[in-house]
Amino acid sequence: MALVVQKFGGSSVADADGVKRVAKRIAATKRAGHEVVVVVSAMGDTTDELIDLAEQVSPMPPARELDMLLTSGERISMAVLAMAISNLGLEARSFTGSQAGVITDSSHGRARIIDVTPGRIRSALDEGAIAIVAGFQGVSQDTKDITTLGRGGSDTTAVALAAALKADVCEIYTDVDGVFTADPRIVPTARKISRIASEEMLEMAACGAKILMLRCVEYARNYDLPIHVRSSFSPHEGTWVTDSPVPEAFKTHQTGEEPVEQPIISGVAHDRSEAKITVVGVPDNPGTAAAIFTAVAEAEINIDMIVQNVAAGASGRTDVSFTLPKSEGATATAALEKVKPAIGFERLEYDDQIGKVSLIGVGMRSHPGVSATFFDALGTKGINLEMISTSEIRISVVTRADQLDDAVRAVHTAFGLDAEGEAVVYGGTGR
Amino acid sequence: MALVVQKFGGSSVADADGVKRVAKRIAATKRAGHEVVVVVSAMGDTTDELIDLAEQVSPMPPARELDMLLTSGERISMAVLAMAISNLGLEARSFTGSQAGVITDSSHGRARIIDVTPGRIRSALDEGAIAIVAGFQGVSQDTKDITTLGRGGSDTTAVALAAALKADVCEIYTDVDGVFTADPRIVPTARKISRIASEEMLEMAACGAKILMLRCVEYARNYDLPIHVRSSFSPHEGTWVTDSPVPEAFKTHQTGEEPVEQPIISGVAHDRSEAKITVVGVPDNPGTAAAIFTAVAEAEINIDMIVQNVAAGASGRTDVSFTLPKSEGATATAALEKVKPAIGFERLEYDDQIGKVSLIGVGMRSHPGVSATFFDALGTKGINLEMISTSEIRISVVTRADQLDDAVRAVHTAFGLDAEGEAVVYGGTGR
Repeated sequence: MALVVQKFGGSSVADADGVKRVAKRIAATKRAGHEVVVVVSAMGDTTDELIDLAEQVSPMPPARELDMLLTSGERISMAVLAMAISNLGLEARSFTGSQAGVITDSSHGRARIIDVTPGRIRSALDEGAIAIVAGFQGVSQDTKDITTLGRGGSDTTAVALAAALKADVCEIYTDVDGVFTADPRIVPTARKISRIASEEMLEMAACGAKILMLRCVEYARNYDLPIHVRSSFSPHEGTWVTDSPVPEAFKTHQTGEEPVEQPIISGVAHDRSEAKITVVGVPDNPGTAAAIFTAVAEAEINIDMIVQNVAAGASGRTDVSFTLPKSEGATATAALEKVKPAIGFERLEYDDQIGKVSLIGVGMRSHPGVSATFFDALGTKGINLEMISTSEIRISVVTRADQLDDAVRAVHTAFGLDAEGEAVVYGGTGR
Repeated sequence: MALVVQKFGGSSVADADGVKRVAKRIAATKRAGHEVVVVVSAMGDTTDELIDLAEQVSPMPPARELDMLLTSGERISMAVLAMAISNLGLEARSFTGSQAGVITDSSHGRARIIDVTPGRIRSALDEGAIAIVAGFQGVSQDTKDITTLGRGGSDTTAVALAAALKADVCEIYTDVDGVFTADPRIVPTARKISRIASEEMLEMAACGAKILMLRCVEYARNYDLPIHVRSSFSPHEGTWVTDSPVPEAFKTHQTGEEPVEQPIISGVAHDRSEAKITVVGVPDNPGTAAAIFTAVAEAEINIDMIVQNVAAGASGRTDVSFTLPKSEGATATAALEKVKPAIGFERLEYDDQIGKVSLIGVGMRSHPGVSATFFDALGTKGINLEMISTSEIRISVVTRADQLDDAVRAVHTAFGLDAEGEAVVYGGTGR
């Protein structure tokens, strides 16, 4: 008997039929002899509909109340899922984040989990019940107010609960078959990855692969918890994210063999969510760059890549460019305009027509030819590179947004990742 | 400064515009210098929609999970209402039943409040905030599970919180102007009652007047808490349910005068929700009636009126009739069929085409002519009376269902309750 945490996203429980399908899947796991904890998101578009409702009564709803509102979405899905499981003859009990012991800080809308005390979940399991837990939500340690973890928070709930319960595996069910070598909507010949190291998955998530959120992968890595990303629409094995061997009880006969050799490259990620700010005409003095990035950091903006041009001739001035999430563009621009007199730069340029392509693989460490192949593939396709950044296991470049798809395909082909025929993807949205 | 508890039903907050209208009303009370606690029901048809959803996944959903599901309705309305109030520049904080300290027993779907510990509400008030509380819900003392109080439970939440907080008044906002001398849909000349004694209101509620639930009136009576039933669609004074003087701070200039003389009759209530079971051919032995009603009581059925015919001649057999809620007809019939061999009656007759009309007024105690006028009014209209029951301040009779409206109008007119012109009723449904 193992303890399995299963997380089902909103698209898996979009309507009553989806809920019933998921209930059957959970029941099968329970009947196979495992203890089962289920984490569920709000049904379908519920969260967006609740946000619409909030906007109808207030342009700037208080964060505490927005969290109270949004958490009703999971309350609905978890109760309905528990009912559907009961209807199959098994006992299921639903628990809010607060009841499940998900303790967070008080940052409404983007709370961080600081402790998990799953006493009631453990009791439910001990009594033979399936525990259904609301994803995405917790209760603040100080004020006892209801909090939300932000988008993608249900994955983090699942991994945090799995870690606290010392689960054998955390299964993340989604509407695609697993993690692919590239987004199959851009690269139809992308292959499903059967197993990926957690540090590679971290880089994939940080570089725009939306299948798992960064925080969730970090959490699993810290607790050495195997994650199995798979489709709720098919029985096939998905992608294992783990640095340890795949637990024997959860290998399926389809694709359960350990790979003979670790591939050099795991996959190609891309990101369209970033913009670039160029600070033009910066005086080339010591400390000026620090002043720029201090101003941005104080506005709590996460910047990604940075390029500083060499000072051009006698002018004594240079340009500094950096990338950041588009959603933070206005805040960053305002913060920089405020320090313009003090720093003495000429102007700001804002460019949201950029894309980022990243190549990820632990094999890069020992294969020095990787970057040459990468740049050659992009150069052959006539793709201009505006910024470059690298880590030990990653190369990222910024291109024009309209060249991004070509760039992803060129790199995917150059590293021999293309499968024969098209990848099989279940479900529609690919989220 | 007074402490006011205001309760708004689902029809008052059916959509964003309704929520904003209610928010303005609450803000006005707060700006008048009062402490304000608001109890709110789920928006519009939310509860029915959630029940539909439950039925789609399970024909018999577990009661615990149904409560978890249904309580999401108030969670939505209370958060949205708090946002709308914040948007008017006042601080509002929403609280679930559990957070508000509404402690109940464990009877899911029809839990009874056993304690109210409103510490967090009191703190919110002390900090100058308006507290918004989810109606209809609590948390069970033993299992810490979420419970619901059953239909109409939000009124009880409001009164129980008002009692625990020692509020000066509990305002129940609805979509009609107050309590009327009869249902204005049947008697267009019915008048709004400006003040009614709690024991009269209890009888009205017990006899089918749907404006306040019986439990809520009982609770207020036990704590000597004035209830003010009024419309959320108009500023007019509604109906005061209280045995003490109306609090000075809440009298309005429109109709604030105390009545010079207590009227003999307060109003006419009617009820279409009951059915009649006749047990035919009951052996006329001591203990037989007891055996019948024991069987019914053990099935947890609330019976209302009882008639036993005098034994007819040599047969030694009699008939026993009683009324009960139509919703419990099938259960009662089954329970009686089971004891048929033991009791030895001939057969059961089930009749759901009955109506009940009740005349209520504390003045009956000292005016012996009331029942004569009552029966004369019905007799003149040719209305046949099938059962009769009385209390000190009430007369009720059962008629054919299709004669009920005529009966209500005849009695209303006979006691001089008709107003000149039609009553003004705001809102649509009259619930």
